[in-house]
Amino acid sequence: ISAYLTFSSPIFADSKSEIAKFMSVPLTDYETLKKESKNDMKAKMELFIMEMQGEICRKLEKLDGKQNFQIDKWNRKEGGGGITCIMNGGDVFEKAGVNISVVHGDLPPAAVAQMKSRGHDLNADKSLPFFACGISSKNPHVPTIHFNYRYFEVKNEDKKIWWFGGGTDLTPYYLNEEDCKHFHKTLKAACDKHSPTYYEKFKKWCDNYFFIKHRGESRGVGGIFFDDLESPNQNEAFKFVQTCAKAILPSYVPIVEKHKSDSYTQAEREWQLLRRGRYVEFNLVYDRGTKFGLMTPGSRIESILMSLPTYAKWEYCHNPKPESNEAKILKVLKEPVDWIKQ
Amino acid sequence: ISAYLTFSSPIFADSKSEIAKFMSVPLTDYETLKKESKNDMKAKMELFIMEMQGEICRKLEKLDGKQNFQIDKWNRKEGGGGITCIMNGGDVFEKAGVNISVVHGDLPPAAVAQMKSRGHDLNADKSLPFFACGISSKNPHVPTIHFNYRYFEVKNEDKKIWWFGGGTDLTPYYLNEEDCKHFHKTLKAACDKHSPTYYEKFKKWCDNYFFIKHRGESRGVGGIFFDDLESPNQNEAFKFVQTCAKAILPSYVPIVEKHKSDSYTQAEREWQLLRRGRYVEFNLVYDRGTKFGLMTPGSRIESILMSLPTYAKWEYCHNPKPESNEAKILKVLKEPVDWIKQ
Repeated sequence: ISAYLTFSSPIFADSKSEIAKFMSVPLTDYETLKKESKNDMKAKMELFIMEMQGEICRKLEKLDGKQNFQIDKWNRKEGGGGITCIMNGGDVFEKAGVNISVVHGDLPPAAVAQMKSRGHDLNADKSLPFFACGISSKNPHVPTIHFNYRYFEVKNEDKKIWWFGGGTDLTPYYLNEEDCKHFHKTLKAACDKHSPTYYEKFKKWCDNYFFIKHRGESRGVGGIFFDDLESPNQNEAFKFVQTCAKAILPSYVPIVEKHKSDSYTQAEREWQLLRRGRYVEFNLVYDRGTKFGLMTPGSRIESILMSLPTYAKWEYCHNPKPESNEAKILKVLKEPVDWIKQ
Repeated sequence: ISAYLTFSSPIFADSKSEIAKFMSVPLTDYETLKKESKNDMKAKMELFIMEMQGEICRKLEKLDGKQNFQIDKWNRKEGGGGITCIMNGGDVFEKAGVNISVVHGDLPPAAVAQMKSRGHDLNADKSLPFFACGISSKNPHVPTIHFNYRYFEVKNEDKKIWWFGGGTDLTPYYLNEEDCKHFHKTLKAACDKHSPTYYEKFKKWCDNYFFIKHRGESRGVGGIFFDDLESPNQNEAFKFVQTCAKAILPSYVPIVEKHKSDSYTQAEREWQLLRRGRYVEFNLVYDRGTKFGLMTPGSRIESILMSLPTYAKWEYCHNPKPESNEAKILKVLKEPVDWIKQ
C-alpha cells in the first residue's frame, strides 16, 4: 500500500468549472483527461466516474444532513490509484463509501480472471477504471444499496480487448414490496432504453451472482448485474453504463426518504446485524471484486474492504419465528421474486 | 444439511460409565467403537475426541459459572455427522463452541485438498474424525483460544493413506507478555515430550498459517500448528495429538482465571470487536478448515461458521495511537515473537 493524501472537501476555488463537481482532483491530470477523452474510453470512463462520485456523494451528504464525506486520494505504486469517499456515523447513514479506482500496469492473471466471465488469454498491460460503492444506513428499515461499474481494457499483443461490467443491487433487512418494485422498475426503465432484453437477463444474472451458496439464500432482493459487455459497440455500451449509473440515485433516494425516520426496536437492530453478517460472508467468500482486490498487488485494502459493515453479528442456529417479519424477508431471499410482474 | 437432534445435558443416567463423560452419545454406536478401537485408529480417535469434548466443555461450564452448553447432535446424509456444543452469552464466555465431526464417504477432491499440504492422488472412501473448537470471552482482556485436531484416512485403491493434523493458538486483544509465555511454554512442554524439534517447527508453521496476508498481520500470537503428521508411526503420532489436546486446558484456563474479572472500558470493547473483524477475515478468506467445510456437500454450515464471533466491527482506516495498548499488540501481530527466549 502506497502513501495517500487526505483532503477535506470542498477543495476547489473555482466552482464554475467541471472539476468543481468532483470530490477531488482526478487521478489522471485533468487537462490530459479532457484531451484524451475525445478518443479514449479509459479517459471517458474516468471523467464519468469522477462526475458520478461527486453527484452521489453530494446527494448523500444532503440526505444525511449531518456528516460529510472524508476524501482519501491514494496512489498505487504499481500504477494508478483511487479516490475513496467515506462517511461514518451520519444521522441517516451508518456507513457510506463511494470508491473510484483507476488501476494500470500488470495485474496477475488470477486477479484478471476474477473480473471476467469469458475465457480470454490475458496478459500484458491492463487498465481498469473502476467505480464501486456500498451504502448502509443504521436504521434497519432503510435497505443497503451496493453498486459498481467498471471498464476493463487489456492490450494482448497487438489486440486491444475491452469490456464493461457492473450492477446495482438492494439489501433490505425487512421486506417492503413497494420499495422492491420501485427499485426494480427504475432499473428496468434504465435497461429498456438500451435493449428490451437487458433487464430480464441482467436481473437473473444478479440473482445468480449474489447468491450465498452455503446458506442457500441471496444477499438481498437483487437488481441488475452484468459483465463482459462489449455490444453493440463501445460507445453504446458506455451509454448504457451511464444510464445505469444515473439511475442509482432515483432507485434509492426515495426509499431512504420514506424510511429514514421509521422507528425501530433493539431486536430489529440485532436482526439487521445478523443480516450484515451474511453480507460479510458473501463479500469475503464469493465476491469477485473483493477477490480481485485481495489478489492485486499494491491494492489498497481499506478501500476494498470498505464495503464491510461497521457492525455485524453471528448467532448459532438463529431461526426467525414463522410468519414473523424476519421470516418474510428470508422467504424472499430463498426464492427470488419477479418484482415487475408482482 | 440433514436433520439434527437437540439434547439437553446431562443425558446419561449411569454416571459411572465412560460414556457419562461425553456430552452426548457418540456418533458411532458405542459398543462398535469400543470393539473397533482395539485395532482401528478412526475408532480410537473418535473415542478420544468425545472424551476431550466432555472434559473441555465441563471445565468451561465450571469456569463460566452461569451458562451450560447447548448440545446438537446431527447426522450427515452422505455419511457421518457431528456433535456441536455451544455456549452463548455466559458470564465469562461470550461464545464458546466445541465441535466434533466424523465425516465418511466421498469428499470432493477440492475439499480434501484444503486439508492437506502433501500432494497425494486422493479419491475413494474418506473418513475424517475432526475435532474443532473456538472459545471467546466478552472481556477484551481475556484472549480467544482456538484449536482443532483431526485424523484423516483415505483409501486409495488398495492403499490406506492417513495423517494427523491440528493446532492450538491464542488471539489476545491486549498484550500480556506473561500470558503469551505461559501459553507457549505449556505447548512447548507438550511438544518436547515427543520430539525436541516439534515446538520450533510447529510454532513457525502456526505463525505462517494464521497470517492475514492482505493485512500484513497475524490473527493472534500463535501457538502450534501441524498437518500431514504420519511419523514416527501411527500410534506415536496419535499419542502426540493426545498430549497436545490434553495441554489445551492447562495452556488457557489460568489466563482466563487471571483476567475474567478485569475491568474494561467501552473503547477497549470496541477495539476487541475490530480485532474480531480480522478474525472473520482470516476464517472466511484463508482458513482451510472453513473452506473444507464450505466445499463439503452436506456439511453443517452452522457448525462450520460457529467460529465466527457474536459481534464484529470494521472501521475504515482505523489506526491506534502510537504507544497505545492497541498499538502494542499490533506490533506483535506484525512481527511474531519468540515467547520462549523472551
